[in-house]
Amino acid sequence: MEAFFSDRISSVKPSFIREILKVANDPQMISFAGGLPNKDFFPVEAINQACQTVLMRDGGDALQYAATEGYLPLRQFIAQRYLQKNGLVVRPEQIIITNGSQQALDLIGKVLLNEGDEVLVEDPSYLGALQAFSVYKTGFRAIRLNEDGLDLQQLAEATDDGQARVLYTIPNFQNPSGISYSEANRHGLAELVRSRNLLLVEDNPYGDLRFTGENKKLIASLVPENTVLLGSFSKTVVPAFRLGWMVLPEWLLSKVVVAKQAADLHTNSFVQRVLCEYLQQNDLDAHVARICEVYGRQRAAMIRALQNYFPADVHYTQPEGGMFLWLTLPEQVSAMALFNEAIKDNVCFVPGHPFYTDRDDSHTLRLSFSCVDEATIDVGIRRLADALNRLSGV
Amino acid sequence: MEAFFSDRISSVKPSFIREILKVANDPQMISFAGGLPNKDFFPVEAINQACQTVLMRDGGDALQYAATEGYLPLRQFIAQRYLQKNGLVVRPEQIIITNGSQQALDLIGKVLLNEGDEVLVEDPSYLGALQAFSVYKTGFRAIRLNEDGLDLQQLAEATDDGQARVLYTIPNFQNPSGISYSEANRHGLAELVRSRNLLLVEDNPYGDLRFTGENKKLIASLVPENTVLLGSFSKTVVPAFRLGWMVLPEWLLSKVVVAKQAADLHTNSFVQRVLCEYLQQNDLDAHVARICEVYGRQRAAMIRALQNYFPADVHYTQPEGGMFLWLTLPEQVSAMALFNEAIKDNVCFVPGHPFYTDRDDSHTLRLSFSCVDEATIDVGIRRLADALNRLSGV
Repeated sequence: MEAFFSDRISSVKPSFIREILKVANDPQMISFAGGLPNKDFFPVEAINQACQTVLMRDGGDALQYAATEGYLPLRQFIAQRYLQKNGLVVRPEQIIITNGSQQALDLIGKVLLNEGDEVLVEDPSYLGALQAFSVYKTGFRAIRLNEDGLDLQQLAEATDDGQARVLYTIPNFQNPSGISYSEANRHGLAELVRSRNLLLVEDNPYGDLRFTGENKKLIASLVPENTVLLGSFSKTVVPAFRLGWMVLPEWLLSKVVVAKQAADLHTNSFVQRVLCEYLQQNDLDAHVARICEVYGRQRAAMIRALQNYFPADVHYTQPEGGMFLWLTLPEQVSAMALFNEAIKDNVCFVPGHPFYTDRDDSHTLRLSFSCVDEATIDVGIRRLADALNRLSGV
Repeated sequence: MEAFFSDRISSVKPSFIREILKVANDPQMISFAGGLPNKDFFPVEAINQACQTVLMRDGGDALQYAATEGYLPLRQFIAQRYLQKNGLVVRPEQIIITNGSQQALDLIGKVLLNEGDEVLVEDPSYLGALQAFSVYKTGFRAIRLNEDGLDLQQLAEATDDGQARVLYTIPNFQNPSGISYSEANRHGLAELVRSRNLLLVEDNPYGDLRFTGENKKLIASLVPENTVLLGSFSKTVVPAFRLGWMVLPEWLLSKVVVAKQAADLHTNSFVQRVLCEYLQQNDLDAHVARICEVYGRQRAAMIRALQNYFPADVHYTQPEGGMFLWLTLPEQVSAMALFNEAIKDNVCFVPGHPFYTDRDDSHTLRLSFSCVDEATIDVGIRRLADALNRLSGV
């Protein structure tokens, strides 16, 4: 029956992380693999209260079909928060609610990418984005990610022929690397986006999760007409609701709405009301501060353990926020080999290769510190170092 | 900035119904236009109870990221219900939870349709399906819908060249026509699907809403290897949750899961648990029976009013269930002209042309009886007849 498959789906690989997460589900396993937020911080009681309030107040209206664009008071809340937190002026009408940021990536593929187009992506990049764009049979041009952000020299070269025009980035606490773009890098990037007339996708799911350092400018505020800004409540409130959003320039709005309508009519409108009620009745900043306090301690514990147990030729990023840290092994060491060695000791992580567009193995790997407590991080990183030693024959 | 748009999105038209619904929102308007279920039957209290139970019982687990395929106990419930109600044996693992049936249509487009493919559809067909498939730059071959189902002679001719192989149908209380396929038609169709090796999409959102007559066989039970069966809770419980599902033959499963994962990781897992709890604690059959009792009376009131007020050269279907009735005017009368005349009298409906693949006007129209009470139906149909008389110069 394979003759029935479309060409496009034949070219999409299932997520490797999915396979890893099966291993990670073993309760014996210390997992640095997942990209999950820590469920201890999900506001179960407050959500319960919000469900009751919405159903008692709105009755059947809370359960009826609703507008494709999303629940207006929720979009108003998001617009208001951008103004307060980022000095970014957006109209609520520019905001479309999506099923998590992942659906926003799918809609971007639908509306902006033709078969054979090459999408500019960070190297390494978020694999869910690579997967979403691949469905539309795109290729990729991967732009090196330096400590301070995107390699603008390489980006300039890669856009010189005018062929690749859509650029996907995560400028804050990037997944997988944990890297954040400096202010200078953001301004330089905005300048390139403007002069080359690129379309920037600024994905910002982790932006609120800053432990140290200063908040940086949203690139959308520098080049609003050329930016699709993505946001999400999955990392700050709850992932199960699948509530993300796109901030769109006016010229893109109607096409994205048509694509969203064809995709699923609208996002679950009940939970949009529930989340909006939750946000109005609770202090999101205080909630996020509690998450940051714990994630920040766990990040510190991980860096401490890496310093203590790993040899000096292993390098790692020191993220100012988010959930991930990126580790670079000596070039001759295979992250897949380390993975296979480490799971024998009940510790796991995500090898780096699925985050690149062009390889089956790498000497890099991603470690997540969001869901593991400090003591367990110490044990897990020590086991990982032992596995590396065994692999290196030390 | 139009140069950024993909070819595919340029070819998709915004839904005409969306525009009509803006007119229909006027509180003075008697609307037979919407495709909405009647919100009086949404089980607000029971859903509230289910939310509380799930959150108190499952805590943070109810709010975490979840499996792409969907919540297993919900899929088990659906499988069990197919066995009881339809004698259809499916494994829960064959069921993928989607954001309403609409997302299932999008996934079918992604996984099964190439640019330039021609999809076999009923004539008229559900316009959300036409829109979803159009995104994948397909054409259409429209197959006449007779009183007893699909025109099998025409289907045989349309599939003779082996080029069009995916067939989209709504065999129960079709949207927009209200027509149901007879048992003989289903068997004939299944035979053609088998002999021509077609892939049948059997969309069944209204199947439970039967007022009169006998339940008919699911075509999926006749040709399971060649059928994707779609279901939805939007018409029987609540639409806001956006909970639909696909029953897939084994050979299609992994590709659809990959496409779903790339589209939005997974469907809202909190409401999957809530709906499952609701279904376990409440009697769905009794609930659906209450809906059918009222929809059935409203359908009868509409047919009575059509008999009383309309001339004999206006024809209409007499659906045994569902939410819609299809009206055929004399050939020279434009449904768009009638629409424009009728809204002056504050009554509206959906003109037939958006349900066809090839025209800008028609002498057919869709009337929905789900959300209008019997007395108002009488007033509305009378106004509609008056508008027709004015238009015909009677």
